[in-house]
Amino acid sequence: MSMVKITFPNGESKEFSKNVTGLAIAMSLSEGLAREALAIKVNSEIWDLSRAIDKDANVQILTFKDKEGIEVFRHSSAHILADAVMELFPDAKPTIGPAVDDGFYYDFDVDPFTPDDLPKIEAKMKEIVKRKESFTRQEISKKEALVLFKNNKYKIEMISALEDDKITVYKHGNYVDLCRGPHVQHTGQIKALKVTKLAGAYWRGDAQNEMLQRVYGVSFPDKKDLAQYNLWLEEAEKRDHRKIGKELDLFVFSDLVGPGLPLYTPNGTVLRNNIVNYSKELNHKCGYCEVHTPNMNKAELFKISGHYDKFKDDMLEVRSHYSKEEYFLKPMNCPQHCQIFASKTRSYKDLPIRYSDFANLYRDEKPGELAGLSRLRCFSQDDGHSFCREDQIKDEFNSVLEVIQEALKTYGLNFKIRLSLWDPKQKEKYLGDESTWEDAQKILRELLVESKMEFTEAEGEAAFYGPKMDVTVTDALNREWQISTIQLDLNMPKRFGLKYAAQDGTEKTPIMIHRALVGSPERFMSIIIEHTAGRFPLWLSPRQVSVLSVSEKSNDFAEDVRKKLFEAGLRVDLDTRTESIPKKVRNAQLRQTNYILVVGEKDIEKGTITPRTREGTVEPETSLADFIVKLKKEVSERRSL
Amino acid sequence: MSMVKITFPNGESKEFSKNVTGLAIAMSLSEGLAREALAIKVNSEIWDLSRAIDKDANVQILTFKDKEGIEVFRHSSAHILADAVMELFPDAKPTIGPAVDDGFYYDFDVDPFTPDDLPKIEAKMKEIVKRKESFTRQEISKKEALVLFKNNKYKIEMISALEDDKITVYKHGNYVDLCRGPHVQHTGQIKALKVTKLAGAYWRGDAQNEMLQRVYGVSFPDKKDLAQYNLWLEEAEKRDHRKIGKELDLFVFSDLVGPGLPLYTPNGTVLRNNIVNYSKELNHKCGYCEVHTPNMNKAELFKISGHYDKFKDDMLEVRSHYSKEEYFLKPMNCPQHCQIFASKTRSYKDLPIRYSDFANLYRDEKPGELAGLSRLRCFSQDDGHSFCREDQIKDEFNSVLEVIQEALKTYGLNFKIRLSLWDPKQKEKYLGDESTWEDAQKILRELLVESKMEFTEAEGEAAFYGPKMDVTVTDALNREWQISTIQLDLNMPKRFGLKYAAQDGTEKTPIMIHRALVGSPERFMSIIIEHTAGRFPLWLSPRQVSVLSVSEKSNDFAEDVRKKLFEAGLRVDLDTRTESIPKKVRNAQLRQTNYILVVGEKDIEKGTITPRTREGTVEPETSLADFIVKLKKEVSERRSL
Repeated sequence: MSMVKITFPNGESKEFSKNVTGLAIAMSLSEGLAREALAIKVNSEIWDLSRAIDKDANVQILTFKDKEGIEVFRHSSAHILADAVMELFPDAKPTIGPAVDDGFYYDFDVDPFTPDDLPKIEAKMKEIVKRKESFTRQEISKKEALVLFKNNKYKIEMISALEDDKITVYKHGNYVDLCRGPHVQHTGQIKALKVTKLAGAYWRGDAQNEMLQRVYGVSFPDKKDLAQYNLWLEEAEKRDHRKIGKELDLFVFSDLVGPGLPLYTPNGTVLRNNIVNYSKELNHKCGYCEVHTPNMNKAELFKISGHYDKFKDDMLEVRSHYSKEEYFLKPMNCPQHCQIFASKTRSYKDLPIRYSDFANLYRDEKPGELAGLSRLRCFSQDDGHSFCREDQIKDEFNSVLEVIQEALKTYGLNFKIRLSLWDPKQKEKYLGDESTWEDAQKILRELLVESKMEFTEAEGEAAFYGPKMDVTVTDALNREWQISTIQLDLNMPKRFGLKYAAQDGTEKTPIMIHRALVGSPERFMSIIIEHTAGRFPLWLSPRQVSVLSVSEKSNDFAEDVRKKLFEAGLRVDLDTRTESIPKKVRNAQLRQTNYILVVGEKDIEKGTITPRTREGTVEPETSLADFIVKLKKEVSERRSL
Repeated sequence: MSMVKITFPNGESKEFSKNVTGLAIAMSLSEGLAREALAIKVNSEIWDLSRAIDKDANVQILTFKDKEGIEVFRHSSAHILADAVMELFPDAKPTIGPAVDDGFYYDFDVDPFTPDDLPKIEAKMKEIVKRKESFTRQEISKKEALVLFKNNKYKIEMISALEDDKITVYKHGNYVDLCRGPHVQHTGQIKALKVTKLAGAYWRGDAQNEMLQRVYGVSFPDKKDLAQYNLWLEEAEKRDHRKIGKELDLFVFSDLVGPGLPLYTPNGTVLRNNIVNYSKELNHKCGYCEVHTPNMNKAELFKISGHYDKFKDDMLEVRSHYSKEEYFLKPMNCPQHCQIFASKTRSYKDLPIRYSDFANLYRDEKPGELAGLSRLRCFSQDDGHSFCREDQIKDEFNSVLEVIQEALKTYGLNFKIRLSLWDPKQKEKYLGDESTWEDAQKILRELLVESKMEFTEAEGEAAFYGPKMDVTVTDALNREWQISTIQLDLNMPKRFGLKYAAQDGTEKTPIMIHRALVGSPERFMSIIIEHTAGRFPLWLSPRQVSVLSVSEKSNDFAEDVRKKLFEAGLRVDLDTRTESIPKKVRNAQLRQTNYILVVGEKDIEKGTITPRTREGTVEPETSLADFIVKLKKEVSERRSL
């Protein structure tokens, strides 16, 4: 009997008879693993556990602990969803149903579902789970596939577009779907599931096509995981920045202005300005000088930078009555910054030259893909570009990395650093010569090691123009957001023919470094709103103090207190309504006011105030002057909660 | 003999025989006046002095002291210019030649002139002046005119477009031009003239048409005026903000970005930010809350506001791949601010609600009409809108007028206020009922009187939507610039259906007030650059301190001084080049650095510094700490020069 050598991730290997299945391999390791196993990674492909392995291979048994395992699990859940819908609505036409970031969905061509249908679908899915139906893989010809799916024009369209004649279908129970797989062993593995929501979606995302019904769901291998997920979801919904943005009156959208184009109210503008001004302060600290630039320019600039070729479809065009040239709203600042650099002759002694910019940027996102402040047509970046010499790269990265760390500490966000390197097997994909790349990567790695920061390396994740460091933060809900970035660019300065007079008398091309501290202030607003659930620290808060007057008799005194706080530069409002004090306090708390001053006749007599915090803690009686000093210190230190 | 009654501006009147000429009337008053007289205003028309007056009339003899007199004078100068060109270049085709703000020009279809041609043209013009040729007016038919100008296709085009069959031509010497007139008595009145510059210009300003040669000139009735003008011009040229902008590296234009789209360098951004931040401080003081808004919106918003109908041709269109709606870059913020107001229900207790905004605005100016920072395609405004009740109008105007005065005092600019009222004879031109208009105008007049400010009233100068106050400043070259404005708007809130719950339980439409403190910060930059000739006061200055190290031995100390100044928030640079100190000082002065610190070994020993000012004054020896305190005080007070 011929054998195959199976090598495991820990480097150990074991012989199995040829055509051993993933399941058998898992069994040989432990019965528990076999129960939890969802699929097997064979070399770099992911396979069903039932597929025969006929060659030596590196393998990894995938469970729900692996990102790829989760994807298989959720994709199989989508098949169960489609099966349930078909059993309930036999006329429905299933189209596609992938796993997505936090669950899965399936799109159907069917009469619109009602919210009442969702529990029915969920119940039917649970029935199918109980049946423990095995997923089986079958290869058929294109012709057979066209016959099999003849009643479903969407599947026919997909099949017709496939080049290969060998087509795979997956079956569990009576449900068959066109699918590349792989899938879990059987429906019984999906122990906990939930149908979460309903949405409309166009076939292939194109508004010209049929409107389909999209059903979303989420699933887990354990009921406890689902319970935990439900709690998390509830919290995430409470913290949704769109909801809080409305409650706290931070930004609004208008149909007359357009989707993805938010209008920041006075409160939202305070929040945004605080984020922007903090980035400006950090920029100043690491030597970046602000420039101010227009939001549009000629297409020509983007032709040289290369954006025209790559991003034209994502750019909004501008038409003038009086200029024949093509103009676009700019999606990034770098090409314009190159023009400022190019406006004068530069010497090696002038470098590094560092520009920062907060100009609005524009991307022509599809309306359906816009979401709150997370994805916008108009946004900005706390953007910066350093033009430097090769011997300055390390210092440039270091100083930016320092202020990024400072910023994220201030915002109370944990972070991870990823060093994105080139793929040494595909050097032709990158611009610039090998030694420059190797040197640059070495420098970046060295400085991370020297600064004793934890980081991961990711080969093949560099930009085509240079290696980079990406910073990902984790919010209070344990979600990850990539925000900061520092990127080396060996390409753009060359494209624009930028030069400086080197010490040796020759002309050299500067290195360009692109960097963002917290990325887009607007998107960062959405992160910080959800991270804090709208309970902003004092320095960020649009509502720092509410003065509540007890009765008409204390109104003048209360107004005097308000005025003094306002003149001290604090954000303060005054409530002289004839409501009860508990109601006014509650109202100030709902508006997330950091400090509440209830001001009555006693306070007038004593000339003191008694602050209470948003959380309800009553602080010791104090003079207004001392209270102002305390608050101004809290603000100037940008103290976290 | 029949008589006509001629009434003079002072109210006196006198009888003259019918068909008396303006010149005869002038003669009857004084021979000197007759010599200086350029034209006569008959009722509201301006006539040649030689034209017969056959009816009773109000008249005013126009001289170079009158704006209308200057226009006639300069327009006649343009005819002399055309005559001179024709005598020198018989093939040239004259097109049009108007008087402009500070002179006149004439456009010719001719082989490009060279700079050498200008003195020749000027000399020939002086010859024509010496000839004292009379200007004569003649009425001819359209047919005759077409024959007369048959060799000039431009004149033919203009004649063909005229509706009236009666066409006037003016002649002096052998030169005949198609012209409505009027003109001065004879060429000899143009006693002093100068051909100033040469430019290209398209026929009718359209880049599709022929490129013409534009010759500019200026003229005066007295040689002394010309001499004074030349001095003024020299100073104005020295102060030209485009020239200083380059010398001090404040802003740059790039062909790849486009005309009218400046890129503000770090130095220029400092200047701009200081202007903007000061306006923000003043806004805060009078209760305006900043909002942040996108630069584009749907056409729909402008259809409602009325801008679409009136300003469509001045707006830049934006095209999305994924949205079918028409979008435009916004030329003003008001419609978006109306949307923020409309996003919530508002009560009379919430008013006034005041928004300020510094968003970039866009106007589709013709490339040929763009000029430095004075006229741009992309600019901003220190814009603000107050939504208030009728009983709040006075306070709203007052508080804005107060901060405008404060600002202009800080900037060292004298100003005039004009109250622009409606034309009571043409009430139908205005929106809103009579009593609201009368009340509003009364309120504005009252507050100006109460505040004891000098102001002029201008009937018929109101906007169609409400009366306004305009503030005009006078710069160091005695030029006037209209910058600040406060406008009452009785129209736009109605168009957007804005409402608030009034105290009496009804719904009411708020009043809207548009206001700008210094107008566009970018245009104001151009004014302040020219007003100060680049010698900015410390608070505005991009270069506050230069530290000049005497030798290598003092470099470390100099760097220490620089660092301390930088950390104190001052804008400082360090010059450690091995140049002579006088050269370094000169260089810092040319860059308009306010304070210069020459730092040598003696200073290290004594631990002191000896500042000198930009003007060369050496100040007493002091400690660095005291110097920093002094400078920070000068900045925080925004002290003028």
